[in-house]
Amino acid sequence: MKIALQLAKKGCGFTSPNPMVGAVIVKEGRIIGQGWHEKYGEAHAERNALAACTENPKGATMYVTLEPCCHYGKQPPCINAIMEAGIERVVIGSGDPNPLVSGKGIQILKKQGILVTEHILQEDCERLNEVFFHYIQTKRPFVVMKYAMTMDGKISTKTGASKWVTGETARRHVAQQRHRYAAIMAGIGTILTDDPQLTCRIEGGKNPIRIICDTTLRIPLSANVVSTAKQIPTIIATCCRDAERCALYEKKGCHVLLVEERNGHVDLEQLMYLLGEKQIDSILLEGGGTLNWAALSSGIVQKVQAYIAPKLFGGQAAKTPIEGEGICYPTAAFRLKNSCVLPLGEDFLIESEVEQSVYGNH
Amino acid sequence: MKIALQLAKKGCGFTSPNPMVGAVIVKEGRIIGQGWHEKYGEAHAERNALAACTENPKGATMYVTLEPCCHYGKQPPCINAIMEAGIERVVIGSGDPNPLVSGKGIQILKKQGILVTEHILQEDCERLNEVFFHYIQTKRPFVVMKYAMTMDGKISTKTGASKWVTGETARRHVAQQRHRYAAIMAGIGTILTDDPQLTCRIEGGKNPIRIICDTTLRIPLSANVVSTAKQIPTIIATCCRDAERCALYEKKGCHVLLVEERNGHVDLEQLMYLLGEKQIDSILLEGGGTLNWAALSSGIVQKVQAYIAPKLFGGQAAKTPIEGEGICYPTAAFRLKNSCVLPLGEDFLIESEVEQSVYGNH
Repeated sequence: MKIALQLAKKGCGFTSPNPMVGAVIVKEGRIIGQGWHEKYGEAHAERNALAACTENPKGATMYVTLEPCCHYGKQPPCINAIMEAGIERVVIGSGDPNPLVSGKGIQILKKQGILVTEHILQEDCERLNEVFFHYIQTKRPFVVMKYAMTMDGKISTKTGASKWVTGETARRHVAQQRHRYAAIMAGIGTILTDDPQLTCRIEGGKNPIRIICDTTLRIPLSANVVSTAKQIPTIIATCCRDAERCALYEKKGCHVLLVEERNGHVDLEQLMYLLGEKQIDSILLEGGGTLNWAALSSGIVQKVQAYIAPKLFGGQAAKTPIEGEGICYPTAAFRLKNSCVLPLGEDFLIESEVEQSVYGNH
Repeated sequence: MKIALQLAKKGCGFTSPNPMVGAVIVKEGRIIGQGWHEKYGEAHAERNALAACTENPKGATMYVTLEPCCHYGKQPPCINAIMEAGIERVVIGSGDPNPLVSGKGIQILKKQGILVTEHILQEDCERLNEVFFHYIQTKRPFVVMKYAMTMDGKISTKTGASKWVTGETARRHVAQQRHRYAAIMAGIGTILTDDPQLTCRIEGGKNPIRIICDTTLRIPLSANVVSTAKQIPTIIATCCRDAERCALYEKKGCHVLLVEERNGHVDLEQLMYLLGEKQIDSILLEGGGTLNWAALSSGIVQKVQAYIAPKLFGGQAAKTPIEGEGICYPTAAFRLKNSCVLPLGEDFLIESEVEQSVYGNH
């Protein structure tokens, strides 16, 4: 199953909104076939592993990280292929929360007399597909709030300068995240201050869809994200209903998405619903303090990635990762769980999940 | 030497301004004596280890974390005791930077025909006594800036509430630090907001000397640190030269220390000089953002302890660990080095050294 997990990860960034899946076929103690879901719309891991078999898989055991599917999507059901190949036993990591599968795949296999073992390395298999699990169940994108700050909690100096907080190793890691998630989201403040490209910039990497939150539609037509919108999909989420102005951005290749206003900002809950409908399963949120607070307080954030640099900026006027209104008392804090630390060069990355019990309570 | 290091640590908090030292005596592969410097003014590690010997140490090897002393202080020189006991070989962790010793102890031992091996686990032995090494060479206290912040860099919410940022395990760790260092320093802002005791509160622990920076001497006579000043030594550092007002605090048991004013604050460099003269070798700085910036920018800080809690407060008006003026551009950041991360319950402690190349340059 560990090998299957490693194989699954090779699909990272290319399978969205499908899950990453890996499969290994073992006969008499020998691995005779391996495969993974390589790209959305193409063959699933199970079929790839069967096709790669170096000998007849009849009577063999298949290890697969996710419950095999039993429905017709872009591809025929995997359980058919497993049964036709004469696989004797299937060992499964995690169940498929997709309501179209969700235990049905396992039931059918068992009915056909195939031995099924479940929950092997389940936690690892579930973590691998946290995005898919969230998306398939909520129909909303999985949102990761990412920021880079100094050891005294600053994302920029008092002058707004933020190049650079972290070192190269950490910045390369961010590029990998941009490849991994389907979209990247920033606020108009970041565009006006830094005029970023918001591209992936790693070899073989995929550029994420760019989403800009711009309540009053004041993004310059000359902004980098606008002028490259024909090459890289760019969505501007706005409350501005001036059709003529919207048309100017559409002409440049942007997709202008109209959403309701809420507390003076784009309604982020509604925006997540609309983006989910567009098959966007995950978003890397690279906002400033204002957008980050709006996102956190509207309950759309699932995960936090805090890159921490061994530096101190100081400054009462320096910017911090989450600003806005803020909470009044520590007991009302947004709580994080399952934190883990990863050293990246001289920097650190602390990754945590947002506890969802307080969803929308603030 | 590892055992000697463990022994040395038993003196933690009690040897100031002396170093922590451990010694182990080995004869024919057997440990025959162990000892450590237990308390300032009492016997040194070498003599304690010799006194604890279960057989004649003649011809034995002594492992000692720090170069044995050769001068008369509160105690007679250790090299005399080593020679008298007939020790054949001495294995030393780190050299003693005390100008009264500094290689002289080793020279004398060698002249007497005793074999000397140096630099064994030197880095560990030096780190053990970072306070002593700094103090003996600069005559200024070693300053550790400590703060507890959320994952979004806040030490309190917008209302100023800070109880609690971190959990119990981390707070117990702070109490140990208060035991470990000779003094604790806070600003008048912290006293007015929280009215803390600034005591150690662990069993068998030692209360640090309390130092309050109060430029205009506005600390209330009813403040906890003032009303308990007869039990726990309390220094008020001020620029206020009103003798009558100073007398009110002196009467309560406080020691009022007059220092020059610099940029509207107590001159911290001068204060460090004065505290060094008072044999205060180390300070745990538990300041707010203003005092922390004053300390950092005046170049008196050697180490940073950032306790980080898996929580988010948000808030543009929330407080951050280092405020004040701040730097203008990331290239001018105060740089930290040799960072290490320690998980404490659900929180993390990141400890780093401040790079001193920028000393006073900001």
